[in-house]
Amino acid sequence: MSGPALRVIPLGGLGEIGRNMMLYEYGDDIIAVDVGVMFPEEEMLGIDLVIPEITYLMQAPQRLRAVFLTHGHEDHIGALPFLLKEINVPVYCTRLTRGLVDVKLREHRLQHDADVHVVEPGETVAAGAFDVEFFAVSHSIPDAAGLLIHTPLGVVVHTGDFKLDHTPVMGQHTDLTRLGEIGREGALLLAMDSTYVEYEGYTPSEQIVAESLDRVIGAAEGRVIVTTFASLISRVQMVIDAAERYNRRVFVTGRSMVNNVQMARELGYLRVPANMMMSVRELAEHPATRTIVICTGSQGEPTSALTRMANGTHQHVTIHRDDTVVLSSNPVPGNEMLVYRNIDSLYRAGARVIYNRLAPVHVRGHASQEELKIIQRLVRPRHFIGIHGEYRHLVLHRLLAMQLGMAAEDAFAITDGDVLEIDEDGARLAGRVPAEYVYVDGLGVGDVDHIVLRDRAHLASDGMIVVVVSVDRQRGELTRPPEVMSHGFVGPEEEPEMLDGVRRVVAAALGGERHPIDWTGVREALKDEVARYLYEQTRRRPLVLPITVEV
Amino acid sequence: MSGPALRVIPLGGLGEIGRNMMLYEYGDDIIAVDVGVMFPEEEMLGIDLVIPEITYLMQAPQRLRAVFLTHGHEDHIGALPFLLKEINVPVYCTRLTRGLVDVKLREHRLQHDADVHVVEPGETVAAGAFDVEFFAVSHSIPDAAGLLIHTPLGVVVHTGDFKLDHTPVMGQHTDLTRLGEIGREGALLLAMDSTYVEYEGYTPSEQIVAESLDRVIGAAEGRVIVTTFASLISRVQMVIDAAERYNRRVFVTGRSMVNNVQMARELGYLRVPANMMMSVRELAEHPATRTIVICTGSQGEPTSALTRMANGTHQHVTIHRDDTVVLSSNPVPGNEMLVYRNIDSLYRAGARVIYNRLAPVHVRGHASQEELKIIQRLVRPRHFIGIHGEYRHLVLHRLLAMQLGMAAEDAFAITDGDVLEIDEDGARLAGRVPAEYVYVDGLGVGDVDHIVLRDRAHLASDGMIVVVVSVDRQRGELTRPPEVMSHGFVGPEEEPEMLDGVRRVVAAALGGERHPIDWTGVREALKDEVARYLYEQTRRRPLVLPITVEV
Repeated sequence: MSGPALRVIPLGGLGEIGRNMMLYEYGDDIIAVDVGVMFPEEEMLGIDLVIPEITYLMQAPQRLRAVFLTHGHEDHIGALPFLLKEINVPVYCTRLTRGLVDVKLREHRLQHDADVHVVEPGETVAAGAFDVEFFAVSHSIPDAAGLLIHTPLGVVVHTGDFKLDHTPVMGQHTDLTRLGEIGREGALLLAMDSTYVEYEGYTPSEQIVAESLDRVIGAAEGRVIVTTFASLISRVQMVIDAAERYNRRVFVTGRSMVNNVQMARELGYLRVPANMMMSVRELAEHPATRTIVICTGSQGEPTSALTRMANGTHQHVTIHRDDTVVLSSNPVPGNEMLVYRNIDSLYRAGARVIYNRLAPVHVRGHASQEELKIIQRLVRPRHFIGIHGEYRHLVLHRLLAMQLGMAAEDAFAITDGDVLEIDEDGARLAGRVPAEYVYVDGLGVGDVDHIVLRDRAHLASDGMIVVVVSVDRQRGELTRPPEVMSHGFVGPEEEPEMLDGVRRVVAAALGGERHPIDWTGVREALKDEVARYLYEQTRRRPLVLPITVEV
Repeated sequence: MSGPALRVIPLGGLGEIGRNMMLYEYGDDIIAVDVGVMFPEEEMLGIDLVIPEITYLMQAPQRLRAVFLTHGHEDHIGALPFLLKEINVPVYCTRLTRGLVDVKLREHRLQHDADVHVVEPGETVAAGAFDVEFFAVSHSIPDAAGLLIHTPLGVVVHTGDFKLDHTPVMGQHTDLTRLGEIGREGALLLAMDSTYVEYEGYTPSEQIVAESLDRVIGAAEGRVIVTTFASLISRVQMVIDAAERYNRRVFVTGRSMVNNVQMARELGYLRVPANMMMSVRELAEHPATRTIVICTGSQGEPTSALTRMANGTHQHVTIHRDDTVVLSSNPVPGNEMLVYRNIDSLYRAGARVIYNRLAPVHVRGHASQEELKIIQRLVRPRHFIGIHGEYRHLVLHRLLAMQLGMAAEDAFAITDGDVLEIDEDGARLAGRVPAEYVYVDGLGVGDVDHIVLRDRAHLASDGMIVVVVSVDRQRGELTRPPEVMSHGFVGPEEEPEMLDGVRRVVAAALGGERHPIDWTGVREALKDEVARYLYEQTRRRPLVLPITVEV
């Protein structure tokens, strides 16, 4: 008789970028891989973060045996505190990932309750029916790992984010040898990073960035300011190495960059010559030609160090004419406008700005098509899914897998909430679990829904008008002129005339009222009349809020 | 004695993409080149369009002799009706541009009053001190022109948007011969398209798109749906040509595509075989393998035909499994999310989607570095400015001009509102004129300012709370429990408890009030107390609107 099936259940990150979380379930046992956040899209007004929905897990929390984290990026670990508040479960990850998780747990005051274990690549953790083995991968953060999930039905290869980089500047190679061993038997399932499946060929090595940064820093006539992702420790190391070669001191600014650099130094991931790194408060005391600033702001984040410099509001760094600013990063989709606005502002301030369109100062962290093909050939999977990607990436990745001979019925493009069931007879879709966006707004988790967002969008588009009328209870007449206010509707010059018009409309609308007053009816009528009047006058539809007071 | 200087005054499009408008002034005479719109950026909440500020012209409207339009794109002609409403001035443009302008003027009911003249390339128009000669350029719309502006001080070469395309699919070559003639004397000023100055080498010819579209349409097994910019008539022609070769009928949908195709046919810019083009209402009557749909939506515009198809809400077109959808366009910066969301939705609906990352189905309409160098070498200008571009483009273009030997003091990166003065002694910055963003919102032009936008952003971020208290005039006590409402703040489950809390805070805040009541003070106190309470509870800052009614 056959045993239970393996169930593969993405709760986030399949069909979208970010918020990665995958469940593997066998019998009564569930493990989770990654618990990430997604940064809000344009129309998620006022939202701070989006996290995965864990309703399915909460139905039987004791079934969750462990959480495994592939690497320390926000879209893979950022929602862990929210999960641990609900289910206290052991967490396994590599050493640098643990360092980044600890920072996060402290922010949420969970550092004492959480049960986080460091695992080295090659080690295996038993979790219920699963034996989970970590294997090294190259990615844009050190200590990234993929997982070999040994199940009673065979091995699942879950790559996490990865690329092949045969000349990495630090960190490890993707462990092709171990993947080749898996391939002798053949994997049950390959779940592979799809982020850059649109790109032909190979992703360039981090080495070309090292060379490019060296050239730029060597040629700079004044100060050099470099921004990159705070977690891109290898990039920070390159800048430090160049600083050493060209006899410059390094100043770090921006909260997440300062924290990550400190943590990476403590854990031994950053090699910094003695006396080289100084506080940005001391920057003014050193000649421009002897300084490099490393800062946050690679995505144009409004409160980041680089954005403050660009806008002339950074406490310690003012942009000068001889400054060379290097954006060692690409804009994440959706951030293009913010990033290019910063570049423009830096040029206006007189700086020379180097970004990826002008010189190779950044490479991607994800595998391109030829790399994806290599992994598939090595592990010889029976079934295939793309992970980490928008829907088109997952579809294109499935087609790529089929190009290499995978049968159409064995390759899937599944998305958040889909359940993929795999047993000895094959693989099939088997229903869905809830996997909606959960919004974090301030302290609230899940209390903002699409109705609240719709109201915010309405307010954002045309502002609002409040109409207050106080009416004599007996006679149904206005006891004073209606009070009208607007916000976000029209400028101060035009406002008085517009509001006068509204008062006339309100007075006219109530003029006919007599006898038993249906307050709901009055409010609806006021709302309609005022909205119609304003639309006629302006072709705008502000939110109209009528308030009636009986006297 | 030397005569007056030439003054070059950009009112839009220099330091930003879109909203192109340039003034050239000599003595009492002013001409304007292009009067375009900019589409609102993310934080311009609720805004429909951004147009140039014409305060400077309105100081002496009679000085404006004429408007010259280089081509029919929105960012070059879209604000013309707003200008003509203020100053009725003759307009000169090529034939297709005139067709597009006419559509626009009809929308604004200006078609009878406007004085629009068609000019052929090679013809010259006298306008005060200026003789303005049109010359042909290649761009992503037929009938695009550059201007040779003959002034008493020399010739200004104003390229408009252009590229070099030696094998254009329709429309004309950039007139290198005439530019070479100008170069014999040398131009006074070269004002050149900077949009793609970041790109090395040459922009590919439209011809490669023709080949690519032919391959895709020839290989398609079912229906083909192609979207592109409605003004990209040459692309529409390519699709029609391919339709003819592969024996398919063409169906056009989306208002601007239908209008432009009709206009281009009437003016003879589109060659359509008899009986080939049909109404999309008849689509269902034709087999999928014999049909091509051409539609709007290349930028993911929410109400466009393609977006409706992607969302399953198009009246006549439902996406099927055998459909091939081609995006013959790139996302304009800022539209990436909308475009990729459409692609994902089309994949989910089962279609095969071809876009520029997968096949060369689009090329840019602007010159790259080597083309820019050719023009500069040909016209041998004494002075240089980049036009059409964000600030970084203008700076990079200046540096490129200097690489070709232009002296630093002769090459400028000027932006909207800067006045560049050129006379026989050289060129220099000479003050500024007003050139702010003018927002169009519904019928309002300029009545929404940055304060209104700030209020909208505040409302968008955390919503609002309205607190109504009615207080006994004599005793300063609440006559009833405070009324509290929220919009866009918190979901329906959490709202009652939150509003209860606000009522308690309000009651407590007013509990101490006695005697002569300072209403402003009460409102401020209420606002502060409620805001503080909500921030403590939620870490959000909704707009708090206290309304006090005396009874």
